[in-house]
Amino acid sequence: MRILVLGGDGYLGWPTALHLSDCGHEVAVNDNFARRQYDDEMGVDSLVPIVSLDERLSAWTEVSGKTIASYVGDLCDPAFTHKMIRDFNPDAVVHFAEQRAAPYSMIDQAHAVYTQTNNVVGNLNVMYAIGEFNRDIHIVKLGTMGEYGQPNIDIEEGWIEIEHKGRRDRMIYPKRPGSFYHCSKVHDSTNLEFGCRIWGLRVTDLNQGVVYGLDTAQTKLDDRLSTRYDYDGVFGTVLNRFIIQAVLGHPLTVYGNGSQTRGYLNIVDTVDCIRLACENPADAGEFRVFNQMTETFSLNQLADTVKSTYPGDVTIEHVDNPRVEMYDHYYKVVHTALPSLGLKPTLLAESLIDHMYDVVERFKDRVDPAALGTSTVQWAATASKLPETSALAQT
Amino acid sequence: MRILVLGGDGYLGWPTALHLSDCGHEVAVNDNFARRQYDDEMGVDSLVPIVSLDERLSAWTEVSGKTIASYVGDLCDPAFTHKMIRDFNPDAVVHFAEQRAAPYSMIDQAHAVYTQTNNVVGNLNVMYAIGEFNRDIHIVKLGTMGEYGQPNIDIEEGWIEIEHKGRRDRMIYPKRPGSFYHCSKVHDSTNLEFGCRIWGLRVTDLNQGVVYGLDTAQTKLDDRLSTRYDYDGVFGTVLNRFIIQAVLGHPLTVYGNGSQTRGYLNIVDTVDCIRLACENPADAGEFRVFNQMTETFSLNQLADTVKSTYPGDVTIEHVDNPRVEMYDHYYKVVHTALPSLGLKPTLLAESLIDHMYDVVERFKDRVDPAALGTSTVQWAATASKLPETSALAQT
Repeated sequence: MRILVLGGDGYLGWPTALHLSDCGHEVAVNDNFARRQYDDEMGVDSLVPIVSLDERLSAWTEVSGKTIASYVGDLCDPAFTHKMIRDFNPDAVVHFAEQRAAPYSMIDQAHAVYTQTNNVVGNLNVMYAIGEFNRDIHIVKLGTMGEYGQPNIDIEEGWIEIEHKGRRDRMIYPKRPGSFYHCSKVHDSTNLEFGCRIWGLRVTDLNQGVVYGLDTAQTKLDDRLSTRYDYDGVFGTVLNRFIIQAVLGHPLTVYGNGSQTRGYLNIVDTVDCIRLACENPADAGEFRVFNQMTETFSLNQLADTVKSTYPGDVTIEHVDNPRVEMYDHYYKVVHTALPSLGLKPTLLAESLIDHMYDVVERFKDRVDPAALGTSTVQWAATASKLPETSALAQT
Repeated sequence: MRILVLGGDGYLGWPTALHLSDCGHEVAVNDNFARRQYDDEMGVDSLVPIVSLDERLSAWTEVSGKTIASYVGDLCDPAFTHKMIRDFNPDAVVHFAEQRAAPYSMIDQAHAVYTQTNNVVGNLNVMYAIGEFNRDIHIVKLGTMGEYGQPNIDIEEGWIEIEHKGRRDRMIYPKRPGSFYHCSKVHDSTNLEFGCRIWGLRVTDLNQGVVYGLDTAQTKLDDRLSTRYDYDGVFGTVLNRFIIQAVLGHPLTVYGNGSQTRGYLNIVDTVDCIRLACENPADAGEFRVFNQMTETFSLNQLADTVKSTYPGDVTIEHVDNPRVEMYDHYYKVVHTALPSLGLKPTLLAESLIDHMYDVVERFKDRVDPAALGTSTVQWAATASKLPETSALAQT
């Protein structure tokens, strides 16, 4: 298949492009390097060094003999987006190209507006380009489990059968997103479901859990193929951050009482979920939703796992929760669609965490302790002071 | 109370400002005149002549002895929005200031993106300004019944009790909006509900039916106080359009088989619903939703009402439906919240329609027959050809 990976220079977009190429698909990536610019803005950097997209692509050809094409440009530019889709003429478009950090969207008004306009407009432009050029191009859109919030009933895969006053309907699963970033993903889903109805688009909306992990079968082949690994309070995800804190001998910082429970996913499963979604497209007019996660943990369970596996002393510290969220809540997620297509989950295991300790150990001199501190982005504030490493805070 | 009406120069914003002022409230209006610019873009005009905002405000002072302040500027400018909210220091903000025509949002990519960014960003800026300045300011936000779509169960007022697999939760009512405009209103609701959770905002989301009618007790007092009356295929609403077609001796154009059923509301009820919402604010942190409509009609019922009441020959013509929507569908709406606050509905009656015929008769020489034609905005297309009167189509 011909697959275009939007956001193909990012944490997950890059390993996805490699995995799809390795599996024999004809792959192109698109990026506008916004993710690298956020590093500059925040004054932080990936723990694992990453090379430029050009160097990555050359390295992949050198290592594998395969070629990945690239389109550098911004999805918010409709002419660029149309031209790219027509030029590459893909069977599937995998859309990772959005601002993806909840804390970033909660910094202040400007970051909330940027996140929502960037994400919503880019996605609309992709829909229009496909609506105009070829409506059979399958859109595989990355969403997040955080769109659902913390409902007191089971979280179904995007749709729910509701019986109400003696009548029934199959309806969109109600969502209560947890940040302006999560809201932007709900907006995208609303637009995409509408696009399926009016234009007969084929859409798979992947509500992804929190991803952890450092590398995949392909990124391991050469240092130049590495993907980024974020640990700062804005872009770092929780397990990645705990592992760095353990290696450095810092306390693991748990927000609030730590009972908050979420769905998690290993990076190697992410890239395979995308492959399965692409190889098994949605029907014409179908808005298909998969809950892309394999395991459920509370923050306390994650912290305890790190404490019990790390070969050294680990302390756990409960800090004030910068987010607004519920504790001790019900959380049960249906996630059977991807296993039914053939997903073999890679569960969180000791050997896997051990490997992460080793890689972090190798790069620990690159850690900026200021960036590792508790996130200073406060959900209840309208404007947050960022850590002093941040270029924003210095202006 | 001090009430700031955003979009106070528009079809409903202007009569709302007059009604609130007449009821003794201290009122200010905000507008950026986008609605008047859409007329220029489309090459159409209000049937009823309207004067400039300055002339309207002077006329109101002359007629009533009361003053309405004005703030001219764009809500998408965050500095302007913050400054205005601080300066007027309202108890309630009534937010009409959005692009409000479904067909306009469906013209092409540029109009879809404009509609969603204009509406979402303006609303976010209002939320941030209030979040920062004074979270007790009550936001009365105009939404639309078209956000719900055509579900096969009763449409509740924004929230629904769901029992699922033996567990229960009160959840956001699932929505399937009918245009990119309607999607933008769903996006706003998603953002506002989140704002209530994180900042304790007070929000009343008014899901309004299709409004019909020409004037209110205040607009009738002086020609300079008139509000606009749109009949073109893009901004005109259906009953207003049927009445003009009857007076001109044109066939009433019904989209599709005419079984499509919607909630309707008289303009005099709209302005009183807003007053009731302002005078009975939502609690801190409450996301309150009212279905603001009084009656339900199918297109066929509306056309038959016009045919039976107009003192002349009326023919009804079924034309191809430019929209994508269901026929012969279930449609039952709960709308008890506003009556419980004291709304006395003004139902569609012969005398009321007669008055509309009279006003249209007075201005019928102003009708542009090209603008009255069937809407050329096609939901299933990605770009629509507009009527030849349109400035856009000529470029």
